[in-house]
Amino acid sequence: MYSSEKMGKSTIFESERILVGLNAFEPGQEHRLHAHGGMDKVYHVLSGRGRFLLGDREVLMEAGTMLVAPAGVSHGIRNTGAERLLVLAVLAPGPGG
Amino acid sequence: MYSSEKMGKSTIFESERILVGLNAFEPGQEHRLHAHGGMDKVYHVLSGRGRFLLGDREVLMEAGTMLVAPAGVSHGIRNTGAERLLVLAVLAPGPGG
Repeated sequence: MYSSEKMGKSTIFESERILVGLNAFEPGQEHRLHAHGGMDKVYHVLSGRGRFLLGDREVLMEAGTMLVAPAGVSHGIRNTGAERLLVLAVLAPGPGG
Repeated sequence: MYSSEKMGKSTIFESERILVGLNAFEPGQEHRLHAHGGMDKVYHVLSGRGRFLLGDREVLMEAGTMLVAPAGVSHGIRNTGAERLLVLAVLAPGPGG
């Protein structure tokens, strides 16, 4: 279901140790600032353009950009481009770990 | 130091939960079959071509290919192309975790 507040997600691989997923943001769509306790998150941009917020910093996202949100650090993503923003997202440990 | 048996490695991010690194294989260079107990490994090919061994299966590696070696499953990589093979490697938990 489309939501302007939440991107599309699908899981590629999941274990207690890691979750590898694909996040798809349509133009204007965002994932609001949030943080994960005890869980590191790594993003790798596959295509599209966006803005990454990490704590009080802001970073341009484009294909090839890699970003790390360490445990407890708030982060958010917004598609600021005209195309779909596709981002590989890796969480460790996995949500069930 | 160059070794035909071992690729070049550098660490991008490391915590007890995750290690994100970059592996560079020169043409012909390989990482022999090995397995990690209790640690999942995810590879994402950035450039170049190679052959990925996972258990008794063999997969072609090229830009965009993603591969998962779950804990305990033996895996290996060989650069079978003419260019450097660049692979993002993510381990969870981190080696110190």
